[in-house]
Order: sequence, then C-alpha cells, then structure tokens
Amino acid sequence: MINKLIGKIQKTGAPIVVGLDPMLSYVPEHVQREAFNEYGETLRGAAEAIWKFNKEIVDRTYDLIPAVKPQIAMYEQFGVEGLEAYKKTVDYCKSKGLVVIGDIKRGDIGSTSAAYAVGHLGKVQIGSRTYSGFDEDFATVNPYLGSDGVKPFIEVCKEENKGLFILVKTSNPSSGEFQDRLVDERPLYELVGEKVAEWGAEHCGDTYSYIGAVVGATYPEQGKVLRKIMPKSLILVPGYGAQGGKGKDLVHFFNEDGLGAIVNSSRGIIAAYKQEAYARFGAENFGEASRAAVEDMIADIRGALETR
Amino acid sequence: MINKLIGKIQKTGAPIVVGLDPMLSYVPEHVQREAFNEYGETLRGAAEAIWKFNKEIVDRTYDLIPAVKPQIAMYEQFGVEGLEAYKKTVDYCKSKGLVVIGDIKRGDIGSTSAAYAVGHLGKVQIGSRTYSGFDEDFATVNPYLGSDGVKPFIEVCKEENKGLFILVKTSNPSSGEFQDRLVDERPLYELVGEKVAEWGAEHCGDTYSYIGAVVGATYPEQGKVLRKIMPKSLILVPGYGAQGGKGKDLVHFFNEDGLGAIVNSSRGIIAAYKQEAYARFGAENFGEASRAAVEDMIADIRGALETR
Repeated sequence: MINKLIGKIQKTGAPIVVGLDPMLSYVPEHVQREAFNEYGETLRGAAEAIWKFNKEIVDRTYDLIPAVKPQIAMYEQFGVEGLEAYKKTVDYCKSKGLVVIGDIKRGDIGSTSAAYAVGHLGKVQIGSRTYSGFDEDFATVNPYLGSDGVKPFIEVCKEENKGLFILVKTSNPSSGEFQDRLVDERPLYELVGEKVAEWGAEHCGDTYSYIGAVVGATYPEQGKVLRKIMPKSLILVPGYGAQGGKGKDLVHFFNEDGLGAIVNSSRGIIAAYKQEAYARFGAENFGEASRAAVEDMIADIRGALETR
Repeated sequence: MINKLIGKIQKTGAPIVVGLDPMLSYVPEHVQREAFNEYGETLRGAAEAIWKFNKEIVDRTYDLIPAVKPQIAMYEQFGVEGLEAYKKTVDYCKSKGLVVIGDIKRGDIGSTSAAYAVGHLGKVQIGSRTYSGFDEDFATVNPYLGSDGVKPFIEVCKEENKGLFILVKTSNPSSGEFQDRLVDERPLYELVGEKVAEWGAEHCGDTYSYIGAVVGATYPEQGKVLRKIMPKSLILVPGYGAQGGKGKDLVHFFNEDGLGAIVNSSRGIIAAYKQEAYARFGAENFGEASRAAVEDMIADIRGALETR
C-alpha cells in the first residue's frame, strides 16, 4: 500500500491528502435540506448529509489527488449512524482508486490495539469466516502506550500490506506540553521519531516504509529535524491552511527526491466555498470550489518545492 | 456523575468495575450458536453474540457493582455492527443503574477532541434538535496531544455533569518506554499526573474530582506516588487479575477514606467460567461464574484494604 501511495503521489504530482472531516456546519444548506427531508433532523439525516457532501467533493477531486483522510471523530459525533457514513465514505473513496488514511488515532495495551488493528486494517474471524470491519488502507496511531501498543498494528499491516502514521509531533498549539519535554536533553518527540524509524526500518516498501509519522505543518523546524531522524518514513503533515501552515513552511518535510511528505488540508478544501477566494462558486457548486482549492494547494506546494 | 459513582461505590462496598471487553473466544459456544443461527456467521451475528453475552453478565452482577467499563475496541473490531452492540450495552447498563465508563482512549487536536467529546459524552446539534451519539457517563482520554486536546472533553463534562479518566501510567509492559522517561529528573507520567490534578482541582464533585486518572495495577510503586500527586482524582486501575495485579498491590492506590480508586477486571470476570476456579459452573452458567468471580474480587480488595 505504501508503494501504491507513493506511485499515486508521483502520478498526480500532488503530495497532498484531502481531509474529509465534515462538520455539519460545512455542509451547504441545500444538501442538509435534502437529507433532512428524507430522514428528518435525526442522526440518520445528519449522516446522510455528510455522506452526500463527501461524495460530491470526492467526485470533483479524485482525479487530482492520491489520497483522502477521513477524521473518524467527525462521524463518531453522530453515533452509530455517523460511523455508517464513515464506512460508506471509506468504501466509496477506495472505489474511486484513492488511498484511504483512516485518521483514528487509536492506541491501547497490546490485546486492545490488536482489536483496533483488526477492525480498521485487518480481518476479524467469525466462526469459519473472516470480515473486514472498516478496511482503511492506513491508520493513524497514538504512541503514548509504547511499543506493545503499536506492534499489533504493525503485525496486521504486514499481513494485509497496509500502513500506519504514528503521532510524533502534532499540529496543535499545546502539543509541546508533553511532546517537547526534554529527555536526556532532547525533546520527547525525537525519541518517538527514533522509534518510528526503528519500526519503519523493518517494514519497508520499495522506497519508503510502511510506518510513517504525523508531524504538524505548524512546526517546520521540528519537521526539519524529524525528516533526518526518519529518512524512510513518509510524513503525514496536518495543519496546512486553516491551522496556519503554508507551502514554504513545508519544504523541509520533503526529501531531495521531492517525496517523503504528504500534506493534509481539511477545512481549507472541503469548506472552500465559504472562503472569499472561492465565493464565486456559490454554495450550490461547493464541489467545484473544493476542486479549485485543491489545484491552488498543489500549485502552492509545487512552487515551494521548486524554489527551495 | 462523580458523586453518583462515589455513592455507588460506598453503597456496594465494591470499589470495582467490570470490564465488558468481549472477545468472541470468551463467548460460550451455545451463545454463539444461537446468534449465528439467527444472523449467520456475519458481523451482525458476532455483534448479537457479544451483546447477549454482555447482557447475561450484567444481569448476574449489576447488584454487586457500581460500574462497568466497556472497551470500545472489542466492539469496533466488528465494524458498525459491533458499535451497535456497544451502544446497546451502554444503554442497557445505564438502565440497570450502573455507571458506564466508555474505555475509548480518544484524544486529538482541539476541534477533533470536541467532536469525540460531543459524540461520547455530550449532545450533537442537528438542525433544531440535539442527540446523544453514545452517551457514556465517563470516558478515558489519551493526553499525548496536551491540554488543548483534553479541554474540549472537560468542557462537555461540565455541561453534562460527566467525567473523565486520563491515561497517566498505563498497565502494559512497555508503558515505561515514553511514560517513564525522565523530564527534569522526574518521570513524564508524574508531569501528566500534575496536569490531571490541575484540571481536576477546577472541576470537583462533593469529595472527588470529575477528572480522574488511569494508573495500572501492575505499577503499584508508581501508584503510590501518583495517589499523592492527584489527591482529589479517582484512579481507575486496570491490570488486576489476568494482567497480573493482585489486591495487596492495590492498597496504595486508595486514600485513607477507603475511596479514591476503582479497580477494573475484564477477562478475569467475564471469562471466569474458563478458569479452573470457576469451572464448576460450566459454560452454560457463565453468568453465575462471573458473579462468583466478582464476589471473590471484592473480598480480595476489601481484605487487602482492611489489613493495610
């Protein structure tokens, strides 16, 4: 799956990922109205609205991009019905040839991480049969519990030819509170980065490892250091756009080969029609606004990489 | 909700919580067979089997215990159908008067944590209405992202009168890999414990805080230190029984008032009928075996507290 992702990044020339994180407030009124007319102002109605919203954005952008990253929390807020919309979104994106990164940030003790790994990346045994619960291609993982909370995910990835992005340095303002604390004179995130490199070295695709890392666009200096610590790990970079990261901040997340990072934008793409820059499309054509925002993001990052 | 939990611990005299973490391999054959006869060897069939298994255990133990802790991963492994069984379990336990601790270990950047908090502890707005997605009473939270990943949970707890248990020192063998690293000559888990105490001080019930902590039974010495660092926080203690913790290891997790900790056992209770000590019940009477195991666990912990 890492080879497929790298291949798609090369083919599209777009080291980006669209974050399918649909708040109901991003969904244009006409889409909400249609869903509520069918299912009422219910959890099912909300789930239908975000699914239809996602589908339109995917239909308008899938040919430009290698991957999507649905954030499961945005679906989980609508309970079981929301998670049905998550599953439909995962399946639909895969049917369009997109690589799906499940932004689930799970992580627990070994036996529990194994259950998450099976549910999201693997197959669960039921009597004489096996089934895939959610079946994303990649998943994000929280490393706070240490190696034995991460290894069950790696085992499933090996079996299923899938991959992980492990939280190393997150994009949020208070990420430094624990992640930046100095251990033997070095920030904790560097130690986590070293573990990612170690796990990753044993599980490599053709050029990059199955085991990647999450490093926020909002911390470019840290990205520069982590790029060197984890040379074979693809870095998933959230925080571009709405969270404040810009193309020029991102160059150090990439290797000399122009690969090595994949930059996520969520709100900046999926709610583009609400921004002044794309207001010309109107809420009716929100999918076209997202397409224009994707094109601009690709141009911004390509430009930054070419002039470095 | 913290007052309700403390009240129920006092009333039952049982500072314990039953972990409803149903692996399909724990579910007796006759329960599996019945579910598969109705729904086939499918995700729905598995979900039905674990729900029926849970219901029997709850029916046989609810009068002895204050709370249950369903581990959502064990349901999530069966996809959307599994999460339906999770929701049914949460609702059923609440209908029996039990406090429900959702062991979800979520945690993300602020806006995403807010969505998790709404989905699990709060209410989501849909048009002119509000709905509760999962509606547990407490949730476990991963602190790796720092304060702004935790605060949205605290905000929802204030509104809804609910509570949290934040991972401080987890029960698994490699929990020390990052949690024990020395920061200014003190282990990271102590710094996390101090933050829990700080968050907790601002959000107190009558005797204990809404903001508790998770500290593994397998690390009694660390529990002793953390008990002092977080005097007002209830400590949720996993790792008793199958993971190796014993009653005598647990005394330091408690305060002098005999309160302050709530000890979880999962496999040791729900799969008791598989142990030699409870084999006399047979698989047919697995619920009675669980009841006996609960009684023994209560006696073990009471004994340890009385002789300290």
